This record gives sequence, C-alpha cells and structure tokens, in this order.
Amino acid sequence: MENIKIGLLGFGTVGQGVWKVLEKNHIAFENQAGFTFEISKVLVSDLGKEREINPGEGILTMDPDEILEDDSIHIVVELMGGTDGAKKYVEKALEKKKHVVTANKALLALYGKELTATALKKGVQFRYEASVAGGIPILHSIRESLTANRIKRIMGIVNGTTNYILTKMSREGVLFEDALEEAQRKGYAEADPTADVDGYDAAHKLALLAALGFKSGIDFQQVYREGIRKMTPTDIEFAEELGFVVKLLAIGMEEDGKMELRVHPTFIEKEHPLAAVNDAFNAVFVEGNAVGELMFYGKGAGDLPTASAVMGDILSIASHWNHSSPPSYQLDFSETGKNIKSMDETQTAYYIRFMVKDSPGVLGKIASTFGENGVSLSSVIQKGVGETSVPLVFITHRTKEKAVKKTIQQIREFDAVTEVANLIRVETLS
Amino acid sequence: MENIKIGLLGFGTVGQGVWKVLEKNHIAFENQAGFTFEISKVLVSDLGKEREINPGEGILTMDPDEILEDDSIHIVVELMGGTDGAKKYVEKALEKKKHVVTANKALLALYGKELTATALKKGVQFRYEASVAGGIPILHSIRESLTANRIKRIMGIVNGTTNYILTKMSREGVLFEDALEEAQRKGYAEADPTADVDGYDAAHKLALLAALGFKSGIDFQQVYREGIRKMTPTDIEFAEELGFVVKLLAIGMEEDGKMELRVHPTFIEKEHPLAAVNDAFNAVFVEGNAVGELMFYGKGAGDLPTASAVMGDILSIASHWNHSSPPSYQLDFSETGKNIKSMDETQTAYYIRFMVKDSPGVLGKIASTFGENGVSLSSVIQKGVGETSVPLVFITHRTKEKAVKKTIQQIREFDAVTEVANLIRVETLS
Repeated sequence: MENIKIGLLGFGTVGQGVWKVLEKNHIAFENQAGFTFEISKVLVSDLGKEREINPGEGILTMDPDEILEDDSIHIVVELMGGTDGAKKYVEKALEKKKHVVTANKALLALYGKELTATALKKGVQFRYEASVAGGIPILHSIRESLTANRIKRIMGIVNGTTNYILTKMSREGVLFEDALEEAQRKGYAEADPTADVDGYDAAHKLALLAALGFKSGIDFQQVYREGIRKMTPTDIEFAEELGFVVKLLAIGMEEDGKMELRVHPTFIEKEHPLAAVNDAFNAVFVEGNAVGELMFYGKGAGDLPTASAVMGDILSIASHWNHSSPPSYQLDFSETGKNIKSMDETQTAYYIRFMVKDSPGVLGKIASTFGENGVSLSSVIQKGVGETSVPLVFITHRTKEKAVKKTIQQIREFDAVTEVANLIRVETLS
Repeated sequence: MENIKIGLLGFGTVGQGVWKVLEKNHIAFENQAGFTFEISKVLVSDLGKEREINPGEGILTMDPDEILEDDSIHIVVELMGGTDGAKKYVEKALEKKKHVVTANKALLALYGKELTATALKKGVQFRYEASVAGGIPILHSIRESLTANRIKRIMGIVNGTTNYILTKMSREGVLFEDALEEAQRKGYAEADPTADVDGYDAAHKLALLAALGFKSGIDFQQVYREGIRKMTPTDIEFAEELGFVVKLLAIGMEEDGKMELRVHPTFIEKEHPLAAVNDAFNAVFVEGNAVGELMFYGKGAGDLPTASAVMGDILSIASHWNHSSPPSYQLDFSETGKNIKSMDETQTAYYIRFMVKDSPGVLGKIASTFGENGVSLSSVIQKGVGETSVPLVFITHRTKEKAVKKTIQQIREFDAVTEVANLIRVETLS
C-alpha cells in the first residue's frame, strides 16, 4: 500500500486532534482510501513543551523547511493560526506542489483568493472545510450538494464562545462579564477574548461562507461587525418576554446582485431552529431557491470535531490521488466582488430600549417620533412605574436602518430620555 | 458549450420540480459547469394528462426506449417510483452506459447493491442523494465529509407525513385518525397511507443510511419496523408531562461490528435537537467518533427540495465529465453484511402504559414484577383515582427488550390489569 506523508504546521489542540483521529481510525482509512497515512513531521515552536501527544523520535521540528523542502511530504496541514507566518508557509507549500489543508479562517478571509489561485496554477488542492464551524460539513455542502440552488440567505451561529456566553446569560441571568469569566475558566474563551466577543471570528467565517455561497470575492473589511459586550440581563429578559432568544448571528443575504453581510447580536423567534442551538454548539441555516430552508448543527470547535474536517479533506485529496481530477473549487473566491449594501440600506426589525424619566407624555412623544420618520411599531413595553429612570422598549416592523438611526438621533435629545440603552436587530422567519 | 441531454422517467411532482429548477437556475448551471443542460425526453404513462408544466412538442413519450435507446441522452433520471419497472429501466440505462440519478428509496433498499455493481462495471455513475430526506445533503455528507469518522449512531426523522401527524396530535390533542385525515386533505399523506404511517418508507431510508454509514450490506427485511397507528392523545400527554416529545425515529447504531436497525415511535427528551423538528420537516442526527454529534435539518420532500438534490447529482456528474474520475462511491452497499441484533437484545428505556382497576396493591404488585425481572424503574405515574380503569404509567431505565417483554407478559395476566395499552421506546441523549 502506498504511503501518503503528511506534514503538520502547528501541534496545538487541533493538531493533536488530527494525530488522535488518525490513530483511532487509521485501519478504516486504509481500507477506504487504499493508502496508509503517516504524519512524518510536525512544526512546533517549542520542542520541549509538555503535550498530551508525544510523537516519536525526530518528528517534531522547529524548522519549517524540514516540511516545506521535503519532497516526500505530499500534504501540508496548516494549524498554526495567525496570518503572516501561515501565509508564507502555505504559499511555499503550494509552490512546492504540495496539497494544503488549513483550518485558518483569518488566513482565508485575507488571502484565500490569492492562495486558491496559486493552488490552481500548481495543480494541487487547497482545502479548508475545518475553517468554518469545525466538524460541520457546511462549506462542502454549499459547494457540492447545494450547487443546484441560488443561495439567498445564510444565517449562522458560528462562534461557540459567544454562544456559550449568551446561553449562560439567558439561563442564569448573569452579567456578560461573569459569563465571560466562566467561559475563560472552562477554556471556551481565551485570555484576550476580543476575536470572539467582538465578532471578528464570526466575521471571518461569514466572509468565507458568503464568498462560497454567493460566489463573490469578499473584502473582509466590508463585513459589518458588532460584538456581544453590550448585552445585558435586562435586554435578555425583554427578549424572553417578547418571544425571542438572543444569538450572535453571522448573516449573509443576496438579492439582485447586492449582498448584505453583517455580524451582530440578534433577536430571533423562539420557534426558529437556530433558537435551540445552545452552549458551545454551532449551526448554520441556509436558504436556497430550490431546497428551501436547511440547517446544519454540530460542534464548531474542539480537537476531534475540527480534526474530523481536516482529516475529511485529507481523505478527499487521497481519493483523487491517481486520477486527473478536476481542479477543485475553481469557483471559490471569485474575482468579481458583488456590491455590498451599506448598513443604512439594510432592513430588519429593531428592538430599542430607552431609559426614560417616567413623566407624562413621554411615551406618546417618542412613539410619534417613530411615526414621523416612517417607522412603524409592533410592540411597546413600559415597566417600573415611578422610579427615576425606567426602561421603555420598542420593537419596530421591518424598516431601513437609516430611518431607525435618524429616529433615535432625535429621541436621544429629549429631556425625558436619559439613555439609549441598546439597539438590537430582530430577524423574523420569512 | 457542449449540451448534456437528460431523459426523465416520470413527470410527477419531483419530475416537474427538476424541470422548474433547471428553468430557474440554468444560467448559473451553465456558468458553473461549462455545459448546457436539456431535458430532451420525458417518459409518462399518460400523454394527455393535465400538468402544471407543459414541455414542448415531442418531449413527452410513453415509450421508455425513446430514452433508453437514444444514444444522445447521457443522463437518465428515474422518478417514476415503484420497484419492478424502475429496476428494469435503470438497469437498462446503466447497461447502455448512461449515468443514472434516482430518488427511489424502495428501489435502492431492494436492488441498490446490484445496480451499484452494474454502474461500476460500466464505468458510469449511479447517484441517489434525493432518496433520503429530500433536499438535505445527508448521504453526500456521510459519504464524503464524514469519512474521517466511524459512525456510531444515526437517528432520523425521515418521514414528513408521520412527523406532520405527530406534530398535529401533540399540538392539538387530536386522535391519530383525525390528524391523518387532515394530512390527506393537505396532500401530505396519500389515500393509502400504509407506506408512511406503518414505517415502510422510514425503514427503506434507514436501510440506505445504515448501508452507507456503517459500510455494510443491509437486508431491508431485517429492519425492525413499527408505525404510529397506535399513538393516542393519552400517550402524548404523558410524554409531555414526563419531559418528552414523540417522534417516529429511524435509528441505526453500530458497536463492535453489530448493528441495531429499528423504526418505531420514540420518546425523546425535549432538549434534544430532534425534538424541535416539527411539521413535515425532516432531520438526521449523526454521531461520529471524531465529529461528535451533528444534525442536518430541512425539507424532506416536495417538488423543489427533492429536485435540488436530483439536480445536485446531475451537476456533480457534469463536473467529472471530461475527467477520468474515480469510480464514485465504490464503498456503497458493501458485500459484507454486518450482524444485526435481534430486538430482544437491543437496549433502550421504555414507556409502558397499563390500564388497571384501581384496587389496593396493584401498583406494588406490578412494580415488584418489574424488579423480579431485573428491570429498574425511573418514573411512575398513576392517575384518575376511583374510575373503573385508570392509566398506570412506567418509565424504565435502560434495559434489554427481552426482559421488558417478559415482564409485560407476566403483568398482562394480573386480574387488575385490563390492558397493556402501549409500549414506546425512550431514547436518551447519551
């Protein structure tokens, strides 16, 4: 049986996960692929570090060229993270005609187009199923199974850390800060949680999903991004009372060649399939013009789920080993970038919570201001009569963001309004 | 641009759906595949029948050979249903070196192995994504994306008709017969509902899922099958009270080379992702030894969703048109059939509802009988004191079916027991 040698760049959680999955299931892989698979070199930054997995003599190395310059290594798996070093090594691997598998969404969001072009030119495969939603085969499904559809909408819970935090806040009524601390203690959030809680990670993944789903080049910078730091138990209680659940959603839509791309906390109806996705689980909801609504649910991170996707890519590359296979995925990261709507032009419903002095006429005055700006209201809740400052909550019908922003600008000036406490977008089912 | 000619066998809902999807999205298909696609012949049993879609002059035919003997037709799509005629035509198409796409699960459950062998021999593709769960790309995902996993468990809501009926019974407390009638009125159930409500359709789909997931030949006859005719509002109320939802599940498991394959009404915990799958939606829950738990959710039937899967298969065939592609799916329908456990050996928890005369000591006597047979109980509910016959409900811990059957046999003989009203298996999350 021919032996396929693999070089790993990075040996953290996912790298060791790949090692474990190969160890666990290698007999099945051999039966299925007709090859043996061997991880022959692993790039690390510290040879002496304590690790769960301890590869044999001579496998760990601190010199990338021991992988990139080794002609016996056919597949390079990049799991080191970051963008600068990763880009340099992946590019070199492709130039050396090695197939590359990566789980690095930041790398892809920044350099995906360029690296895909290099892979095409060199006739090798460049694959990245693990980069979005870990073990959930969402990219493959969009690219292969749903090709008969024009994708109209993608809505994903693609960041497990923020979903864990929001689930905890919803269940236990705790503050964002406390839920974050708990997530950090449990290893769900990093010491610097910015990439997760400020929505960068989700925005990178949305850029990838949209690039493949809408067949468009995407400039990651143009994805609107808002994190979950402003979420409060008060807003979550109002959501509950109004029949909603709060999720950090990555939302992409395309209509008439114009895309909407945005990541922000979102109220969704309790009956929506995404509403039941809790803790660190991920899910991606896709709407196609033939298939209708689909949802893919599973673990979006972790050693084995992510390794499942990485190893799936490796096996897929192996299945084309001795064949002239079609250049895969030539439609990824299309050159043509479709237009992206500005947030002013997007339409959703809105939840807006004002803090107001409970004086006569304030509700009427605010409600009238919405009306004057053409924003119609679907619900109003006023609570806590008699206190110095009480919440006054509105849910609008679907309307342009521009109109809502303008309305709020005006209401903010009212004497009775002490604070515009939160604005959260509301996505309805249809 | 080269033109790929397609022949359809059958022009019912799904056939017309394929026509519509091709009409809707053909420009995208051409851009993507580099081919034009043309449905050049359609086999029907009645030329004059009123149809939503009216193909042009000379396309409809009642002679299968106008498709099967036409060398200009490269892809045959079988959507006629049934098994005898379909088998004959599909076989002939493959012999004539035409690629075949089908949505016919009964055909596959009975002749899948044989037809796959013919396709392999002739070097053509035989694809059937649409046969299970309509537009949900579950077969493709099991076969391509989850190859790095040993699949441990598959649990699916794969029949929309029964899910619609059970959802209606749960929401409105109506009888099975009334919910069925409503489903028939709405076109979700056929005049003869046997295939759906007695679980045949689900069992066919389970045979397919298990064949691919567990890489085993499956004799469809060995799938245990129990439909939903015995479900009553009383049992559904008890489910609700005990924290469960009732679904018709198709369950496949493999451990140590032994499979469990069964279709039956099942209590699942309200928190399980499958519990939120309502109305005519389908979902398949898969557990792999690397990826953990995944779920795929969407429309399992209907013209466009099913056509989405059919057209996806056609596009995938086209993507290998001018390449020596690997013989696809050679692992499907493996020759080796793994052992299937008898129902006596399977283990689940059980819900059992007896109707008893409310006399002193009856609860104690029944509970003792469970104990004597080594069956331990997790919940007991007794209701409606003083009436002539009252329900007495037990939930057991996980135990072998054999022990439960034996216990019930004994309890059935007690004078105070007027009826063993229902036995429903209970699947817990882990």
